[in-house]
Amino acid sequence: MPLAAPVITLLTDFGTADGYVGEMKGVLIADAPGAQLVDLTHDVSPQDIESGRLVVARCWRRFPPGTVHLVVVDPGVGSDRRALAVESDGRLLVGPDNGVLSPALLLAGARAISLSIPAHASATFHGRDVFAPAAAALATGTPLEALGDPVDDPIVRRTPEAHRRDDGAIVGEIITIDRFGNAVTNLVGRLGGVLEVGGRAFRVGRTYADVDVGEPAALVGSTGLIEVAVREGSAAQQFGLRRGSAVVLHPR
Amino acid sequence: MPLAAPVITLLTDFGTADGYVGEMKGVLIADAPGAQLVDLTHDVSPQDIESGRLVVARCWRRFPPGTVHLVVVDPGVGSDRRALAVESDGRLLVGPDNGVLSPALLLAGARAISLSIPAHASATFHGRDVFAPAAAALATGTPLEALGDPVDDPIVRRTPEAHRRDDGAIVGEIITIDRFGNAVTNLVGRLGGVLEVGGRAFRVGRTYADVDVGEPAALVGSTGLIEVAVREGSAAQQFGLRRGSAVVLHPR
Amino acid sequence: MPLAAPVITLLTDFGTADGYVGEMKGVLIADAPGAQLVDLTHDVSPQDIESGRLVVARCWRRFPPGTVHLVVVDPGVGSDRRALAVESDGRLLVGPDNGVLSPALLLAGARAISLSIPAHASATFHGRDVFAPAAAALATGTPLEALGDPVDDPIVRRTPEAHRRDDGAIVGEIITIDRFGNAVTNLVGRLGGVLEVGGRAFRVGRTYADVDVGEPAALVGSTGLIEVAVREGSAAQQFGLRRGSAVVLHPR
Repeated sequence: MPLAAPVITLLTDFGTADGYVGEMKGVLIADAPGAQLVDLTHDVSPQDIESGRLVVARCWRRFPPGTVHLVVVDPGVGSDRRALAVESDGRLLVGPDNGVLSPALLLAGARAISLSIPAHASATFHGRDVFAPAAAALATGTPLEALGDPVDDPIVRRTPEAHRRDDGAIVGEIITIDRFGNAVTNLVGRLGGVLEVGGRAFRVGRTYADVDVGEPAALVGSTGLIEVAVREGSAAQQFGLRRGSAVVLHPR
Repeated sequence: MPLAAPVITLLTDFGTADGYVGEMKGVLIADAPGAQLVDLTHDVSPQDIESGRLVVARCWRRFPPGTVHLVVVDPGVGSDRRALAVESDGRLLVGPDNGVLSPALLLAGARAISLSIPAHASATFHGRDVFAPAAAALATGTPLEALGDPVDDPIVRRTPEAHRRDDGAIVGEIITIDRFGNAVTNLVGRLGGVLEVGGRAFRVGRTYADVDVGEPAALVGSTGLIEVAVREGSAAQQFGLRRGSAVVLHPR
Repeated sequence: MPLAAPVITLLTDFGTADGYVGEMKGVLIADAPGAQLVDLTHDVSPQDIESGRLVVARCWRRFPPGTVHLVVVDPGVGSDRRALAVESDGRLLVGPDNGVLSPALLLAGARAISLSIPAHASATFHGRDVFAPAAAALATGTPLEALGDPVDDPIVRRTPEAHRRDDGAIVGEIITIDRFGNAVTNLVGRLGGVLEVGGRAFRVGRTYADVDVGEPAALVGSTGLIEVAVREGSAAQQFGLRRGSAVVLHPR
């Protein structure tokens, strides 16, 4: 096997049809020849920072140290929002200072700098003119500190916290709906409790496969959070769930 | 040109927006550094094993021997369905035992093993915790047999067979509709017959370009099967066709 | 860092769900082992040559010399339209002779050849049987001229030209709508003019960030053309704009 090349992942809300992602890839290949480009997604809902943050949370530490994550969900492009580069747990990330990089920023030891904006940069496309060049620079060994001044107050966003009622029940909410219609809560899962959602109550189980096709279940999902699923169906549709919908957990 | 790295392709029904594919790629890059990741598709309809199988059929032998195909269309995840790794005609495939790997399994000489499920594996995401690690292991030279016990009765699915009527006509069906609205049948094509579909009859020709824009045609498609097309239009929409719709071929 | 491998980009209107792109990638990997495959997009609207041309225009020179761009938006496949390979400014492109490669063809010094069509080529899938093999050949060092005969009259398409009215105003049109609902015009931008569109008039500014959320703006986009945007909204939807909609610029 050849020596592994630097890895740059891409995560945007651009879709691919307009060519914006293609332009960014051209910059990456030109500035960091030989780097391996890995698409995480370009299908984050337009300007949905929260969805972008959740994908970052899922993925960033699955990749080995040295990986550069290029993250562009950037409704504030052209404003005075800062452009960041971050080093955290050996991984490098670049993206706007709007909370999308929070999963890396919140880890102890994270360092952030504010990227200099080149004079020629388009005011509407920092992905191409600011973030991609910075990602390529980091991938080719430029130290973080060479790209800008330290920032000690980056914007961070957190998953909404659940709270405990006087009766011991825990009130949470749906934080995202996935492609299969599974509704993910902000409740850390333990087997055996009972989840109330949309007027129904479910014992928290292990997997959809424990119920019949078309039947709903509450289970501990792949990030350790409780989710509501319908086997081979859509829980979101069946129960009218969306981001922010309330759920109540009665622990065992 | 550098020495070619191992190639791992990805084929799922996950979409990319939720980050599941990103997590799998992180595992692949971490476990098989330097491997080349190639997206086949993540847009198979959710839990549509049959569509996944057709994409596998189209693609798996186009890649050179040694390629690892990671295939995750897996409605039965968390049940007792087996997780497979397959070697067939020099290619390696991993995926659930639900028929999606049939094109490789049906070839003479194919060998399959049942992957061991690690204790820590999420019951809802074997793509990340079972299949991606197995694909990475195969890509880095682990022998198939080291990953689990032999399986001699994997589930196989076949394209529905056409049958011949007493009058010599062949009755088939639509097996898939593509993005262009072309409706692909299960009838192996020969030029010159007449295809009946949706109350119309067409001589089987060579290409859409033989008819005027907006006009329908029956032709031998790129896998050798007869398909119904409308030049620069959608045959599926124009004739109300979907998977399972009947067609009749009158051979010349 | 290892020696950089040859780069082949892919741009199609195939989507990925049907496996056509997967087949092409198999051919590329088999014929040009070690080449780096870079997806530009597979989401061009079906058979929309004009959108494909605009993505080519955005991307092709962002990549370094030596890059091979494989471009398949090909409603005329199977007709007598020629199949081209082009060398322009050090980049190589292959695709149908329908104007989609115009941005490269229009540059001084561009050379084009007409690819030979192998006898076995499917009449409906030149992407797999003609263009991908040609791209792989170019990526592995085959000279352009070895692949076919010179062509001196390739089809070229141009962005529609704006024209100046007697009163000095410039009449243009919308050439594309992007994923964010931004409507891009054919008017080269300079700050300070006033753009009339959909019954409204806007001073041409620098970025959406200069207006409040939900408010419209005219600005100079990332390719230097004026576009109409709504901050964190869709200008196309708000003003009923689509390709071909008229706009009028009153220069300062």
